[in-house]
Amino acid sequence: MNYTRAALFIIGTELTRGVISDRHGRLISSQLTQLGYRVERIIILPDDGSVSVLLKECVKTCDVLLVTGGLGPTSDDRTRSIIADLAGVELIRHPLAFEALYKRMGERIWGANEQQTMIPEGFEVIPNPNGTACGFRGFIRVDEREVLVVALPGPPREMDRMFFDHVRPLLGELSGHNDFERSDYSTYLLGESKLEELCRSVASEGLEWGTRFQEQTISLYIAGGDQEKRTAMVERLRSLVGPLLIVDGDVQPVEMLIKELKERGQSIATAESVTGGLVSKLLTDQSGSSAWYWGGVNTYAYEAKVRLLGVKEETLATFGAVSTECAKEMAEGILRQSSADWALSVTGIAGPSGGSEEKPVGTVCFGFASRTLETQSVQVHLSSHSRDIIRRRAATVAFLLAARYIQGGCLLDTVKKWQYS
Amino acid sequence: MNYTRAALFIIGTELTRGVISDRHGRLISSQLTQLGYRVERIIILPDDGSVSVLLKECVKTCDVLLVTGGLGPTSDDRTRSIIADLAGVELIRHPLAFEALYKRMGERIWGANEQQTMIPEGFEVIPNPNGTACGFRGFIRVDEREVLVVALPGPPREMDRMFFDHVRPLLGELSGHNDFERSDYSTYLLGESKLEELCRSVASEGLEWGTRFQEQTISLYIAGGDQEKRTAMVERLRSLVGPLLIVDGDVQPVEMLIKELKERGQSIATAESVTGGLVSKLLTDQSGSSAWYWGGVNTYAYEAKVRLLGVKEETLATFGAVSTECAKEMAEGILRQSSADWALSVTGIAGPSGGSEEKPVGTVCFGFASRTLETQSVQVHLSSHSRDIIRRRAATVAFLLAARYIQGGCLLDTVKKWQYS
Repeated sequence: MNYTRAALFIIGTELTRGVISDRHGRLISSQLTQLGYRVERIIILPDDGSVSVLLKECVKTCDVLLVTGGLGPTSDDRTRSIIADLAGVELIRHPLAFEALYKRMGERIWGANEQQTMIPEGFEVIPNPNGTACGFRGFIRVDEREVLVVALPGPPREMDRMFFDHVRPLLGELSGHNDFERSDYSTYLLGESKLEELCRSVASEGLEWGTRFQEQTISLYIAGGDQEKRTAMVERLRSLVGPLLIVDGDVQPVEMLIKELKERGQSIATAESVTGGLVSKLLTDQSGSSAWYWGGVNTYAYEAKVRLLGVKEETLATFGAVSTECAKEMAEGILRQSSADWALSVTGIAGPSGGSEEKPVGTVCFGFASRTLETQSVQVHLSSHSRDIIRRRAATVAFLLAARYIQGGCLLDTVKKWQYS
Repeated sequence: MNYTRAALFIIGTELTRGVISDRHGRLISSQLTQLGYRVERIIILPDDGSVSVLLKECVKTCDVLLVTGGLGPTSDDRTRSIIADLAGVELIRHPLAFEALYKRMGERIWGANEQQTMIPEGFEVIPNPNGTACGFRGFIRVDEREVLVVALPGPPREMDRMFFDHVRPLLGELSGHNDFERSDYSTYLLGESKLEELCRSVASEGLEWGTRFQEQTISLYIAGGDQEKRTAMVERLRSLVGPLLIVDGDVQPVEMLIKELKERGQSIATAESVTGGLVSKLLTDQSGSSAWYWGGVNTYAYEAKVRLLGVKEETLATFGAVSTECAKEMAEGILRQSSADWALSVTGIAGPSGGSEEKPVGTVCFGFASRTLETQSVQVHLSSHSRDIIRRRAATVAFLLAARYIQGGCLLDTVKKWQYS
């Protein structure tokens, strides 16, 4: 049979009430389109079970029905039983689903969450590494056709990964378009529209691309053509934006630094001002972080810089807190206080207030010190009007440059070559 | 007649191919929700005329059908004729539509654009100040009901203004429901399924509720009934979960602390271990945070606690780093180092590794010190298997308890009453 016609059902009362925007529709339909499907409709509807009627309608004409949402533990979440009903089978407790949930919840599984271990009989579990709701997939016979029905949880952090790992490959097999070639990259410091502009300027025929905003990165994929063509495109991008800002695969900036530290079995200490703890928070997001993170200080007030780090009053008076001089003393100060091998510092102006003509909002200075290498410090301008984005980008720069510093690179050279805005 | 049920049809092949994201769904559905409508579905579909069948289906059950897109001059754009067909009337040239288009295009009107001057007979023109496609609105009689049907062009720049100027006012008139009743709350530390269970156990007839997961809170709304009934329900919830964990409105936990500090013109210093900088990051998310945040330390390593905070080696050896004793010394240590008025500390085990029988993953101790009040420290158990959630909840507890401490409360009493898991 020929799998071509698809329909998406996106369930969430917060979507039909306009509280939040849907993100799945575009993501999934672009993937389906790449795989040769025609998306006949994307239907967003409340958690009230009304999806039932629409599924029964669409199963007559579509080859693939994909449902997101309605898999939670609450009374509104009835996707499981609706799909079982559509398939004409019972809901049964699936051992894999049970085991996975038990691992997360232990004995607390015996409450509202228990129903999350049930899937329609004959369906296959789709594991959820980021949440309690497993997904499932199976085929429903309609006349001579075997319609694929897939259910995934609503939260994007859970849905995205499950879709790419367990649904997209099957969809490719079914449509016969599984040879679709694609390369993924992570980009740092670049805005989404800037990145789009750059891609347009260097794209060659037959290549498609797309971007996706994440917390610390913007993901970029280049699809079509062959590997060589895609690599040539990304190399042209790299030559435009400068070193370190586009890397292969899905890589968080903090991982670049952690990798260098882990390889050496060494640790780092931090002295933050503008990022206010974001750098250390990201360094400790993973379990086992005491192996590479010694600790650090958030010296928000002038006085904190002096008392906790030994920054000289004179330096603050002459150059200000946002200066390469202060960044240098901050990094050296925390290195001295600690037994860490490396130290980094960040001081800057995230705005919206506090900027001046000489040092506008977005000015951020970074310092790097170690037991073996000479201290380095650089100033960077991060052009955004969002305090949040400036702070996140400042953390990104800190990680990229710290990794480079540990490798023995010259940071001034690196930042001089950056063209990110 | 009672206008309550609405459906949106958003037409655009670029949407179902995932080339662009829909923006109308959220905008229009939030407006409809405000006006007391219930949006039963948002359907996104290609420019292929397939909207026809769905409109015929929905007109049977909905009171308002709103269509965007498909009003352009190309052959794919057939919304006009589909709605005329649905209404059982002819398309006629409308003098206002003709006049407006003639003004824009002059004699070039006699081509593909000509059809843009046609609307279903008996319908009213909605002028488009930003483009060539006018919209239209009218009523279709279905049994005893008069269903409102509205068509607007797809480009947001055109649609938005036409919707707000000519559609929203009419929708408000029809629903007569400008004051839909609903109360919003923020809840802390409670899991979504736990909260759902609690709501179910205390809900009274006629009340609906819903929850929404946010970074540091889960929002809860209670709708229907009257204010008194909603307040009674939330009071029952509060009595079940204990003090501080459910507050009115949309309030981030950090705001509770910042409010206390701002009122007094005082500042706080932090000593974090398990949260690794998250507490200070949240305290500095807003501009102007140097007014209430002095700075702090992230003492991840044992040695960092000793060197940066003066925690006694003996305390660490006897009670461990995760103990109320250590939390107390951490808070007093950073208070001593700083000139802040208040100090808080957090030390705990976020896992997944590092737990023991005596101190399982999720054990977190908090210390609070000040220039005037006696130091307090408490231990709390946060039951989650997610490192990320434990860290976020630990930050929440730190803010709630710090606010309570500043008010002069007894923290041991507070946490004893908590029933959050």
